[in-house]
Amino acid sequence: MRILVIGATGHIGSVITADLESRGHEVLRASRGGEWTVDTTDPTSVRSLFERVGEVDAVVVASGSVPFAHLTELTRDDYLTAFTSKALSQIDVVRVALDHVRGGGSITVTSGVLAREPIATGAAGAVANGAVESFVVSAAAEAPRGIRINAVSPNVLENSPGHHALFAGQRPVTDAEIARTYALAVEGLGRGQVMKI
Amino acid sequence: MRILVIGATGHIGSVITADLESRGHEVLRASRGGEWTVDTTDPTSVRSLFERVGEVDAVVVASGSVPFAHLTELTRDDYLTAFTSKALSQIDVVRVALDHVRGGGSITVTSGVLAREPIATGAAGAVANGAVESFVVSAAAEAPRGIRINAVSPNVLENSPGHHALFAGQRPVTDAEIARTYALAVEGLGRGQVMKI
Repeated sequence: MRILVIGATGHIGSVITADLESRGHEVLRASRGGEWTVDTTDPTSVRSLFERVGEVDAVVVASGSVPFAHLTELTRDDYLTAFTSKALSQIDVVRVALDHVRGGGSITVTSGVLAREPIATGAAGAVANGAVESFVVSAAAEAPRGIRINAVSPNVLENSPGHHALFAGQRPVTDAEIARTYALAVEGLGRGQVMKI
Repeated sequence: MRILVIGATGHIGSVITADLESRGHEVLRASRGGEWTVDTTDPTSVRSLFERVGEVDAVVVASGSVPFAHLTELTRDDYLTAFTSKALSQIDVVRVALDHVRGGGSITVTSGVLAREPIATGAAGAVANGAVESFVVSAAAEAPRGIRINAVSPNVLENSPGHHALFAGQRPVTDAEIARTYALAVEGLGRGQVMKI
């Protein structure tokens, strides 16, 4: 398959691009720099990327960060930033990708454990991840030409130790689990699924 | 209890204000007009409402509308509107309310079945409702002074027949169920719950 990975230089992006290539796929690595430059918070940039890329069999998005602060310190703007950076950006990729993914192809976005578990300082992240997960359920049901839409929702990453204290007691996700789950989203038959790892 | 109901003139708001009064509570009815005027999408208006209202034992929010359109017709702005109108507005009420609700009091927001069920033309609504539900889980865990935060997540309303075709086959929620569930959120002990009806 010809697969566009957006957020290819982040930890998840690096793991899945390496894995998808090892599985024989052609992977186009999009990120804020490099050949396939994109800023997913800028709708013009998203459209421009897909015009340059042309047709693909699958799109995988693993981008977007969120502010962390205690509930009593999060501002209205923090919630708006979390939403636009991690949810609206990925939703916009799905919107545009629907015109560029081949019939029967797939689009996979990324949410996270904050959608379902209370983590200290995580309320803004929860908002973004909850938005992504409910979007996938609805969007998958209306996707044209048999295109499958799913989300992968990882817990804290074993190989991003900077986050371990914040997610104390949560089960870290290995790179192998990350690779396997995105591969399942791309090569499997699921649609409208939130794949929790 | 002294209870502020925001969105008091909508169908849910009317049902719950009548019910909470019949249960002996003092209810302050806030909406876009009347004595307790508020526009929940305007942070200045939200702050001003709470300054005028002073201390309350409970806040209930049932406000915010979302655009409906097929997945391939929803625009980036539709998603942003859904989020700001139904999610960010209620989150902002919670933020400000935390300074005005008495210790041990409660804040109840409203999401909806779109967070969990795919409904045609409902992807933008799903985004807003999913954001609200995940917010409640995280926010409740960090709420100060024992304040309880919950969401009521109703299916289509039996007495809003204009929506029945869109939610074909979904189980309509009676006014009695609405009243009972918000009363449970206000008078019960739940925290961080998404009360599905």
